[in-house]
Amino acid sequence: MASSSSEHLLSCPWTPVDIGDSQFLCKSWFGQTQYHLLLLDSDGLWEEQMEAEEIQSRAQELNRRLRASVEALVTAVTPCLTGGGSDHVTIQRRDGHMTLRLKSELAGMPFHWEFHCRPAPVATACVQLVRPLLVMSGALQRQTQLLFALLRRKDAEIQDYKENGAQLTRERLQTEPFVEETFRQDFMTKTFPSLLEEQESSLSLDSELQELYASATSRQNANSKRKRSEEEEEEEAEVEEENHQRGDAPAQKEAEKTRTPAPDAKKTTLPTMQQTAPSYPSAADRAAPKPKKKKTGLFR
Amino acid sequence: MASSSSEHLLSCPWTPVDIGDSQFLCKSWFGQTQYHLLLLDSDGLWEEQMEAEEIQSRAQELNRRLRASVEALVTAVTPCLTGGGSDHVTIQRRDGHMTLRLKSELAGMPFHWEFHCRPAPVATACVQLVRPLLVMSGALQRQTQLLFALLRRKDAEIQDYKENGAQLTRERLQTEPFVEETFRQDFMTKTFPSLLEEQESSLSLDSELQELYASATSRQNANSKRKRSEEEEEEEAEVEEENHQRGDAPAQKEAEKTRTPAPDAKKTTLPTMQQTAPSYPSAADRAAPKPKKKKTGLFR
Repeated sequence: MASSSSEHLLSCPWTPVDIGDSQFLCKSWFGQTQYHLLLLDSDGLWEEQMEAEEIQSRAQELNRRLRASVEALVTAVTPCLTGGGSDHVTIQRRDGHMTLRLKSELAGMPFHWEFHCRPAPVATACVQLVRPLLVMSGALQRQTQLLFALLRRKDAEIQDYKENGAQLTRERLQTEPFVEETFRQDFMTKTFPSLLEEQESSLSLDSELQELYASATSRQNANSKRKRSEEEEEEEAEVEEENHQRGDAPAQKEAEKTRTPAPDAKKTTLPTMQQTAPSYPSAADRAAPKPKKKKTGLFR
Repeated sequence: MASSSSEHLLSCPWTPVDIGDSQFLCKSWFGQTQYHLLLLDSDGLWEEQMEAEEIQSRAQELNRRLRASVEALVTAVTPCLTGGGSDHVTIQRRDGHMTLRLKSELAGMPFHWEFHCRPAPVATACVQLVRPLLVMSGALQRQTQLLFALLRRKDAEIQDYKENGAQLTRERLQTEPFVEETFRQDFMTKTFPSLLEEQESSLSLDSELQELYASATSRQNANSKRKRSEEEEEEEAEVEEENHQRGDAPAQKEAEKTRTPAPDAKKTTLPTMQQTAPSYPSAADRAAPKPKKKKTGLFR
């Protein structure tokens, strides 16, 4: 069973890209003859997906004297969104669409390209951003809880030393016993507001957050594969059961043809990806148990 | 200058709601004669916005013998999405829409209602979820960095005691010196995968995350207000300048009439909200400086 393209895109990281005066987080996949692009800015999530014919046709329109293969065209536009060559890019926002116009070079000749981006489906934003970010927030919060526990253990150790008359040679090394509530309050009233000011309108994911994102999304992908696999097995079992009841020979080929996505599936269909996903230690490599339906009763 | 409704919705928290077999995070605002609803599930973000006439009309259709004010109708449906009364709710997903059918009570009589939800605009998902979650992830990460620093200071204190011959009375209180890299690796390889299994397909935001969310969104709201205010001041200044050059008297009323949203503004327009926002210590109360345009160069 081939992996779905959306799973490949999901495992790509977000990279910050400055285009003109605008900041974006960008996910892009450039195949040999196609590309798929997601751009996140303060207005929303933008998307463009182009295949060979469309790429050829637009290249011709923008560069009348150019004759080049689709592969060469795709190669010429890639640097713009992977960090380099963004100096010659301008943005136009109009009627709910966003056009990025860039001037690059191809075989020593000027080459013009345009990305015509439209708002991505909301499901794409949820799969690519909201769900992983919810998981990442939960993970980071668990980290802080572990660190609180470690701090309390160290305080217990220090307390023991002190109770037995131990003295510091350097007074400045003395720390206050850690109080979680005080830490949180100080953070919310002093540190977080400063952080918000610094990060105002900046979109970023540093290396640790990228790592958490990669783990969260590899999990999402593993779950998607497992669900698809279970659905297919169920369909095959149903077909075999019908065949058995009818007295026919098991019809494997027939079963394969009935593999259609569940009617309510709302996955974004993408061209086959060829980019290698970054290799992080992956939960996908472990046997995935069946999902437990947990009711999570939560504060407020 | 009245606050925009979308700002009120932004400051509402997300609450987990179980409807049938499905888990959602839900944001809802129920006014006297209108409501606005957002529901997040594993398929995406759903929305419904209804005003008095539409509510009356649907109530009539579903309950032919019912005569009730819009206020009473809205009151009857509120509990379904604020935690109570979800036993009598069923979900139908079809053609990209989601219908929640509920049976409640109004003045001792059975009362039927339906929420007809469609996919929310992607910009709504970005404003209500993606941006706050990015900010929250950054905040939690900053917390871990502060805690790492605290742990190192405690290790320095412990080291000083030990170097001066201090002994523990209870050996079990001894801790290992904290090594950030080891902590991260253990977390990524052991703790995080377990957490992912526990939280599989569960959507939640506990009290601490809710607090971070509230701070992040009050900041977003403060920025929106400030930008709108600046745009209005600029427009007024331009009008006054033109008037001055033409020799007219300053035309304040004229300036007020020219207040139109910037053509590229992509804000969701909502009915006026009346729900009181939860009161968290708010960065919005502090003078907000002009945004600095920082290029954030980040590790891939």
